[in-house]
Amino acid sequence: MTYTLVLLRHGESDWNAKNLFTGWVDVPLSEKGQEEAVRGGELMTAEGLLPDVVHTSLLRRAITTANLALDRAERHWIPVKRHWRLNERHYGALQGKDKKEIREEYGEEQFMLWRRSYDVPPPEIELGSRYSQDSDQRYAGEPIPRSECLKDVLERALPYWDSEIVPDLRAGRTVLVAAHGNSLRAIIKHLDGIDDETIAGLNVPTGIPLLYELDEDLVPVTKGGTYLDPAAAQDAIAAVANQGR
Amino acid sequence: MTYTLVLLRHGESDWNAKNLFTGWVDVPLSEKGQEEAVRGGELMTAEGLLPDVVHTSLLRRAITTANLALDRAERHWIPVKRHWRLNERHYGALQGKDKKEIREEYGEEQFMLWRRSYDVPPPEIELGSRYSQDSDQRYAGEPIPRSECLKDVLERALPYWDSEIVPDLRAGRTVLVAAHGNSLRAIIKHLDGIDDETIAGLNVPTGIPLLYELDEDLVPVTKGGTYLDPAAAQDAIAAVANQGR
Repeated sequence: MTYTLVLLRHGESDWNAKNLFTGWVDVPLSEKGQEEAVRGGELMTAEGLLPDVVHTSLLRRAITTANLALDRAERHWIPVKRHWRLNERHYGALQGKDKKEIREEYGEEQFMLWRRSYDVPPPEIELGSRYSQDSDQRYAGEPIPRSECLKDVLERALPYWDSEIVPDLRAGRTVLVAAHGNSLRAIIKHLDGIDDETIAGLNVPTGIPLLYELDEDLVPVTKGGTYLDPAAAQDAIAAVANQGR
Repeated sequence: MTYTLVLLRHGESDWNAKNLFTGWVDVPLSEKGQEEAVRGGELMTAEGLLPDVVHTSLLRRAITTANLALDRAERHWIPVKRHWRLNERHYGALQGKDKKEIREEYGEEQFMLWRRSYDVPPPEIELGSRYSQDSDQRYAGEPIPRSECLKDVLERALPYWDSEIVPDLRAGRTVLVAAHGNSLRAIIKHLDGIDDETIAGLNVPTGIPLLYELDEDLVPVTKGGTYLDPAAAQDAIAAVANQGR
């Protein structure tokens, strides 16, 4: 008896394309991103991977990706659960800033620390500023962050993993999680038992479903899982690693 | 204290455009239907009607309508609930048939009886036939019909209304129901206390949100509710009434 989990990072967003730090800013998918999402649905269909339930963040790039992929896979009708705990990492004061400019302004070392260190968050976002979410109704009453490192993401995502996703897996459902680079890295770190240094080098490509078969103890049968299109995943991982260059 | 309910019939589907009986056949929206859905979201935004939760059928024309309208209204992130009890009326053996041909073959009287009588269902669909849903996984284990009159729709929709929609209203949530001509007529008949004859003349236009404010006893403050675009609703109602002519 194994459990079936499919992780799907949203397709390219308008701000991925523009090379801006996005975080919790709720930008739409680019046209390319919409195509990636549909292709994600095609890959699931070709593999016979039919989700019984989908979990998404509260951000439209993940929500639209799930909608488009599931429609293509003829699974648009499955139950939907959404939570901010699956949101992208909050990029603090960097939200809305150009990655290249930040890199030039602060230098390669600080840039990589903010992007890839496990436990150094960027400076906190100013409340009430343009790209802050403090008055956004979808988070009303929730203990939302003003900046996050990957460790913070893991600590807020795991309670949702344990309380909402694990029960769906244990019930024998094929679970799709449509989310973001860093919320998915947090889940992968947890599943594969990756240490705090090694996780820095792990990138998740957009729009390519990543299949995990999990054993009774929810340990991956194949460490790192299996991308449904391994060749495209390799190319995309390399592209993500080069962002801001 | 009033409760706020918004009813939204899906935009034009490929088969509305082709004038075929659709029922439970899961056809997509036409391009016009997608535009109608987006406009539905614009109308809600303009009116400041922001849904806190959405209920849809299991059919993609209602699901996509909800997705597009909510995305436009910046409410793509709200909780979603889906159930076959909100599906369109099952049109039995007529599913997939041309409305005009059926009218010519069976005559105006039989045609209108099947389309608009309260309690005469069309002939049952043959199990395993092309447009039957008996092997469709989304309905596995559910007591689904093989043909329905409006009375049947009302009888299967009301348990869902009572158990799922009413609690959301009572909790003070603005509730959006994205569904179909006949499942919405069933809800409207129930809300407005319309008799079995009068309901025959009631048509619901596609893509125009219909607002009901309900009092403590869930009785509409304004009988018939209020369309967010009354002029367009009048035109569309006339067009629906002329289908199959």
